[in-house]
Amino acid sequence: MIQCPKGTRDYLPGEMAKRRWVMEKIRKTFESYGYSEICTPAFESLELFEKKGGIGDENIKDIYKFQDKSDRWLALRFEMTASVARLVSGSPEIIKPIKWYYITNLWRYEATRKGRMREFWQAGIENIGKKDELIDAEILAITYDSLKAVGVKNFTMKVNSRKLVSKIADKYAIKNKAEFFRLIDKKEKMPEKEWKEDLGKFFSRKSDEADFLKLTKKPWAELKKDLKAIAKEDIEYLEKILEYCKKFGVDKKSIEVDILLIRGLDYYTDFIFETIIPGEKDLGSIAGGGRYDKMIELFGGQATPATGMGIGIERVMEILNDKIKAESALDVLILPIEEEFKAKAIEVATELRKNGIKCDIEFTRDKFKKKMSYASEIGVKYVLIIGKDEVKKGVYTLKDMEKGEQKSLLLEKVVKALAR
Amino acid sequence: MIQCPKGTRDYLPGEMAKRRWVMEKIRKTFESYGYSEICTPAFESLELFEKKGGIGDENIKDIYKFQDKSDRWLALRFEMTASVARLVSGSPEIIKPIKWYYITNLWRYEATRKGRMREFWQAGIENIGKKDELIDAEILAITYDSLKAVGVKNFTMKVNSRKLVSKIADKYAIKNKAEFFRLIDKKEKMPEKEWKEDLGKFFSRKSDEADFLKLTKKPWAELKKDLKAIAKEDIEYLEKILEYCKKFGVDKKSIEVDILLIRGLDYYTDFIFETIIPGEKDLGSIAGGGRYDKMIELFGGQATPATGMGIGIERVMEILNDKIKAESALDVLILPIEEEFKAKAIEVATELRKNGIKCDIEFTRDKFKKKMSYASEIGVKYVLIIGKDEVKKGVYTLKDMEKGEQKSLLLEKVVKALAR
Repeated sequence: MIQCPKGTRDYLPGEMAKRRWVMEKIRKTFESYGYSEICTPAFESLELFEKKGGIGDENIKDIYKFQDKSDRWLALRFEMTASVARLVSGSPEIIKPIKWYYITNLWRYEATRKGRMREFWQAGIENIGKKDELIDAEILAITYDSLKAVGVKNFTMKVNSRKLVSKIADKYAIKNKAEFFRLIDKKEKMPEKEWKEDLGKFFSRKSDEADFLKLTKKPWAELKKDLKAIAKEDIEYLEKILEYCKKFGVDKKSIEVDILLIRGLDYYTDFIFETIIPGEKDLGSIAGGGRYDKMIELFGGQATPATGMGIGIERVMEILNDKIKAESALDVLILPIEEEFKAKAIEVATELRKNGIKCDIEFTRDKFKKKMSYASEIGVKYVLIIGKDEVKKGVYTLKDMEKGEQKSLLLEKVVKALAR
Repeated sequence: MIQCPKGTRDYLPGEMAKRRWVMEKIRKTFESYGYSEICTPAFESLELFEKKGGIGDENIKDIYKFQDKSDRWLALRFEMTASVARLVSGSPEIIKPIKWYYITNLWRYEATRKGRMREFWQAGIENIGKKDELIDAEILAITYDSLKAVGVKNFTMKVNSRKLVSKIADKYAIKNKAEFFRLIDKKEKMPEKEWKEDLGKFFSRKSDEADFLKLTKKPWAELKKDLKAIAKEDIEYLEKILEYCKKFGVDKKSIEVDILLIRGLDYYTDFIFETIIPGEKDLGSIAGGGRYDKMIELFGGQATPATGMGIGIERVMEILNDKIKAESALDVLILPIEEEFKAKAIEVATELRKNGIKCDIEFTRDKFKKKMSYASEIGVKYVLIIGKDEVKKGVYTLKDMEKGEQKSLLLEKVVKALAR
């Protein structure tokens, strides 16, 4: 028996209906902020993802790559920002600001675990054209509204600025900043002792290391005073984002500054964020993003500031799966009692569908009892019985499966009873 | 500048909104017949598509195939029926009938032309569990309703039965039937003279060839009488499908039997169909499908009859693109006149969004005139102006961009004016 390839899976109707519900709620939120949908190819030229300053060497090894029949090197889309940056860099005529969204699948050859598949889905937005605190605040507000809209109750958006971390590194005369960033990014993924040992290597003085560790534990109110001297601009930028977030209606308890946040993609320039669920450490970030002001230029376009975010659908589903009640696929199941009433059943079904009623005809089971137990099994709310009497009189028996009640109705009354 | 890989393309918001509109109309039609959405991986084990009796050798050469980092041979999904058959064959516990739909992308390494890309999208259904004329008629009815729902006015669904063609071939003692089918399938793609020359090779007697050609030109009413002697069952099956289609409300002018229809996939067993637009020969079939009663078995499952169809989104878009008017992405554009009113603009936007109004804040252009010409450029129907006077009095200026009228309104009145 052939199986799904490792790291991928099938979604059957029950689960898919819940995923669809989540995706449509998020879509609606994105659109309420004036974002429009785009669609790019599932694969790109490999060089797009291998660009220096793009997704970064750590990630390049996880790309699904292959050659087509003309020996072009292609890569399954590792993430969407590179594709969007490619598109924008080649189309300077597009009016700014660009506000785009996507809901699509991506592929990474990684070790699979809870909420992490090799094929996974992401709903994300990109805002391209200007750097402004309002825009980064909007990115956070949309993340917040999307998660609230689908019913995620308790989450924290951790925000930071890579420029701020860079200035902190300068303060302690840390030389290999890229390595330093990478280690900081691994904090949650390594045993603490090991992490601290590795951290020590970056500091020439023990006192600096202790000072830095103390800094990471301070609340934002203190931290911002301490760092104002070395990173006034970056502190003010973050402060302004937080202020705008309040205006957007984001509960301030849902945001916190975390100077140990780095994120795993090389292209981020300053503002970055990640969203975690307290008590769900294994799940990782359910939504994240940040500013990538150099990327359009990197792909040969005009220098254009840009920011964005993505929400991991599988990770959101890990939290929500049991809480969503998907709508029933059917409003009514039509049961022709005898073979000869199939044609009549089609006519009835066609009339119901014209009135927006979702229905199906069960004729594949011969006995009435079997038809009824099938109706119970699929959990349909109503069945409509078409038998000899019904056809003769032109009235049909509509049975409410939950209440057990049934009525004999003319077709137009059936339509009225079932139409919402 | 990096481009999209050959045979793929980006869809920008204007076009994507139209595609989304089409896909959602089709989704609604599918759901009205009791079909539920599923989702399978974008790539499958290569062997799935290379199975003998599956998509067929002619198609195998067009698969995008590659090895993952563990040397597994994988294939980008060439079509959905094989994936669905794989899923069903491994899950005998799923209640029958299975009524599934999908709207997804597929990949074929083919020569690109009008309506044919290497990445293309298809909306399709599969009905698995029973063989019955009602089900095949339903497949046609859903195709018909879907195309009508999106606004395709003039189309013909050509139907046929492979078993019928097989019996015709037997009548003329044609030996290599697979080759014969392949030639028949190429009729529209070859110069007529060449096709006829090739056809001649299959007949040992000239009179048989002439007889066959005469047969292909006969209308169904005559044909069915002629063929009843050799293929009674298949003729009756097709007749019953046509009869049920009428009950489903399918205009009989939209269906015709064409005994030269074969279709390019090996796995079809009897009923098959294709949909063409008269006068759009270059476009090929915009929707097609058929019965594949042996496929679940082929993949190691229990023998289970099955039928289905797919609609080519790009081909439908070729016909409809200019006719669809996509909904505007925004209901209103909010214009804070001065930098200092940005925060107020966010509050106003947040209130509007709470009331289901799609809005955006334009603050990236400094001059009022530039803001207004941006509003014209993106075609938004209303702008809401937030200036000094407005903030002081708590009333905002709502301007109808089409009529040129403007009113000063309290925020709650703005909500009322914009809510539909």
